[in-house]
Amino acid sequence: MNTAPSTRTQVKRIARNASYDPALLHAIVDAAYVCHIAFADAHGTHCIPTACWRSGDYLYIHGSNGSRMLQRLTEQDCCVTITHVDGLVLARSAFNHSMNYRSAMVYGRFEVVAEDAKRQTLADFMEHLAPGRQAEIRPGNDKEFAATTVMRIALLEAACKVRTGPPDDDEEDMHIAAWAGVLPLAQARGTPVPDAHCAVAAPAYVKDWATS
Amino acid sequence: MNTAPSTRTQVKRIARNASYDPALLHAIVDAAYVCHIAFADAHGTHCIPTACWRSGDYLYIHGSNGSRMLQRLTEQDCCVTITHVDGLVLARSAFNHSMNYRSAMVYGRFEVVAEDAKRQTLADFMEHLAPGRQAEIRPGNDKEFAATTVMRIALLEAACKVRTGPPDDDEEDMHIAAWAGVLPLAQARGTPVPDAHCAVAAPAYVKDWATS
Repeated sequence: MNTAPSTRTQVKRIARNASYDPALLHAIVDAAYVCHIAFADAHGTHCIPTACWRSGDYLYIHGSNGSRMLQRLTEQDCCVTITHVDGLVLARSAFNHSMNYRSAMVYGRFEVVAEDAKRQTLADFMEHLAPGRQAEIRPGNDKEFAATTVMRIALLEAACKVRTGPPDDDEEDMHIAAWAGVLPLAQARGTPVPDAHCAVAAPAYVKDWATS
Repeated sequence: MNTAPSTRTQVKRIARNASYDPALLHAIVDAAYVCHIAFADAHGTHCIPTACWRSGDYLYIHGSNGSRMLQRLTEQDCCVTITHVDGLVLARSAFNHSMNYRSAMVYGRFEVVAEDAKRQTLADFMEHLAPGRQAEIRPGNDKEFAATTVMRIALLEAACKVRTGPPDDDEEDMHIAAWAGVLPLAQARGTPVPDAHCAVAAPAYVKDWATS
């Protein structure tokens, strides 16, 4: 990650919340299952959600070879954004209400992951989601790999923006008799739901899902 | 919402998951605190997260008058996307792994909400977040309202895409001895955190936050 911002990653709004720390960027990406990607074509500008994962200094996505988005992303720069909403911030004045959040924006051009690296890259994705599962399932066959494109974008031209903590009220509003504080939000894991035909005992990544 | 898709809202990938049902669109928007907006300027295509709410057949956003995004959004069509990740879908083959999700994409042009409607619109937003709170806090003053732009986009040219339920394995993979099912994900509410200087008893929308 470039620790000096580019024209595109220089945060202007509430710049005190901006960060160009690679460790923070990696943590925000690693906490996400999905990113949103903005790109353009003859029909306009599009914002499409897709699964993502990180390996080293790259963010990866995958999809069908026929995907319009994947085709366009080799031809143009795009913007990849990840946002985690962490809470509603209730201040004593309407104007100072806010949200706590962690967000990351990455600019650049995706590149197609070469055939000889594709299988390992997808295995890395599985390992990230469910450690050990790759050895339990039927791996992809030649036809399935041939139908799948994997792409990556460098986590280089990027910016993070984070808000945490209590409301930031104006001094003259501190006497207002309104409850003030944070209503937390978080992504939570629920109890695993086995398939109706599943007779296999739950492995560790399933048993520990809701509590880890 | 147009129940017949446009060129931009005709879902092509896994079209069986597409829906043009306005009630579903409204439910997806109402469950969101944040949307992602794709738009373009001289520096490229951008994907920016921002708070959103719905009133009737419009999605609303707000921000500072000086916001680059708000300025651009009056000049061009954009794409607004909301995504809720509901779970990881673990199939018996690597290829059939998926995610459960609810997503909505809206295309069109934002319009600025006129001055005489702005205050009520922002009060609606507060009522949506914390019913009854608007009467407890210091309302916006003229200077604060003058610094704030509220915009809306019609929920007209839109598409939803939803996946629910168990994995969809190929018949020939059903003998594979791998756990199969869904690892659920959901947005959860945590215990409210009062501001250090808050001596006001928690109102209903705070007391009931984590359990409602």
